[in-house]
Amino acid sequence: MTTPTDPDALAQAVGQAMFAVDTASKDTLGMTLVACTPGGAVMRMPIKQLHLNGHQICHGGFIFTLADSTFAFACNSFNQVTVASGCSIEFLKPAKAGDVLTATAQAQVRSGRHGIYDIVVRNQHDEVVAMFRGKSAQIQGTVLPS
Amino acid sequence: MTTPTDPDALAQAVGQAMFAVDTASKDTLGMTLVACTPGGAVMRMPIKQLHLNGHQICHGGFIFTLADSTFAFACNSFNQVTVASGCSIEFLKPAKAGDVLTATAQAQVRSGRHGIYDIVVRNQHDEVVAMFRGKSAQIQGTVLPS
Amino acid sequence: MTTPTDPDALAQAVGQAMFAVDTASKDTLGMTLVACTPGGAVMRMPIKQLHLNGHQICHGGFIFTLADSTFAFACNSFNQVTVASGCSIEFLKPAKAGDVLTATAQAQVRSGRHGIYDIVVRNQHDEVVAMFRGKSAQIQGTVLPS
Amino acid sequence: MTTPTDPDALAQAVGQAMFAVDTASKDTLGMTLVACTPGGAVMRMPIKQLHLNGHQICHGGFIFTLADSTFAFACNSFNQVTVASGCSIEFLKPAKAGDVLTATAQAQVRSGRHGIYDIVVRNQHDEVVAMFRGKSAQIQGTVLPS
Repeated sequence: MTTPTDPDALAQAVGQAMFAVDTASKDTLGMTLVACTPGGAVMRMPIKQLHLNGHQICHGGFIFTLADSTFAFACNSFNQVTVASGCSIEFLKPAKAGDVLTATAQAQVRSGRHGIYDIVVRNQHDEVVAMFRGKSAQIQGTVLPS
Repeated sequence: MTTPTDPDALAQAVGQAMFAVDTASKDTLGMTLVACTPGGAVMRMPIKQLHLNGHQICHGGFIFTLADSTFAFACNSFNQVTVASGCSIEFLKPAKAGDVLTATAQAQVRSGRHGIYDIVVRNQHDEVVAMFRGKSAQIQGTVLPS
Repeated sequence: MTTPTDPDALAQAVGQAMFAVDTASKDTLGMTLVACTPGGAVMRMPIKQLHLNGHQICHGGFIFTLADSTFAFACNSFNQVTVASGCSIEFLKPAKAGDVLTATAQAQVRSGRHGIYDIVVRNQHDEVVAMFRGKSAQIQGTVLPS
Repeated sequence: MTTPTDPDALAQAVGQAMFAVDTASKDTLGMTLVACTPGGAVMRMPIKQLHLNGHQICHGGFIFTLADSTFAFACNSFNQVTVASGCSIEFLKPAKAGDVLTATAQAQVRSGRHGIYDIVVRNQHDEVVAMFRGKSAQIQGTVLPS
């Protein structure tokens, strides 16, 4: 398969290639990759029994993981291998079994090899569950052969 | 069963009660609760295929989740329901399949209803994988009947 | 003087009252309050010799202070006393003597007594110097008599 | 003047050289450098009128600045130019005019070019006012000629 050159097609192809081998996000936590665009990504995770902690709400670590995965897809969407160099999260609302969380990532600033991405996690009522901010650093290499 | 009054026995009983119903930590991610002491906790997580992301390393979100769980056990160990009001994490080293991560939480400051807890995550070579700092806020209620 | 009831006039009056007694922002660091609107604020700080650290660039702590002040004006603009309960900052670009920094704060989420505010600090070339995110908590009392 | 080779003497000489030209810390905010050791530093700042915000307490940004300066002295103490790549702060207690704040920095982890430093800010009653954690990255160059 040839690596696409069109930015939208490239982002989509990179996203699919990364997601196919992402056991943690796909198999363990049950996320789906809804979209991967240049500098952006959308992922979804329905909350089930497996996500619940001792208070019978979704473990905050899994909300973090959803946001962190979405961040990774967004910042690798240009087909340059990019890693997180820092992040912060604010939790605003708990999530319960039956909720469906959607995380939306968007690049805010890209300057040289560094970027800032904001990820908002919302539930099915469009209420904000968490806000995550990630700082990215591009390293050597490409996700798909360039 | 009577709730213990001795602080060490109380912390251990609270930890066991919380862990028994913590599906996310115990069943989904395979953590064990090694110890729960007044203001402290130790948890362990062997890294398996289920923890790996697309780069075939442990998903950073699961390292966060391990630290966050250990924080929760430590700050609830006094049998006062306590929640996180903020946290930060620094990732220092990746973890691979076959690694065994141990998170150790210890209260640094407790003042009124608030506390600061430091959680260090190390691998089986005693190398620091991540450092997490959590701010806790005590709310109403007890974990075990008081 | 009567406290205004119109939200825009109220925000402006609260901002002016707070700024008048803010020695740190006004006198020590030389900030000006450009605007205070419902949920928003704009402050400016020209970088002079007094702001420089040993590397002859603006001390990162003063960029933090500019963002933190702007956050405070924005989250108190509804005339309910509101304090920071957490914050994070990412530094993207240094500032030099002669630069003029402008910080713009805007509420992102307000829910009950809590809010999330984003503050962007830009230089005179509209380049992003820092991004600050603050979590606010409303406490008892008003800034101006209500 | 020859650059010392003994680590303690080197740290002290680097600290003095950096502090001599640090207008922001020394002149604007009135800090003193109490000690600079390999991987550590202690700085002090008496709180005066100039530090107060509109609530007549020390501006949180200045507590951040004190911690950030102390971090910078600690991580440059090996005479390798080192910059902050991220930081977080938790505020625990306000500081008033007349208080004397002391910030103590100590390296927690150093691995390759990266390090984690913890900075604790205490008042004259030895109460913790803030806890700051900084991540450092060593870049090219030395502070004093090597």
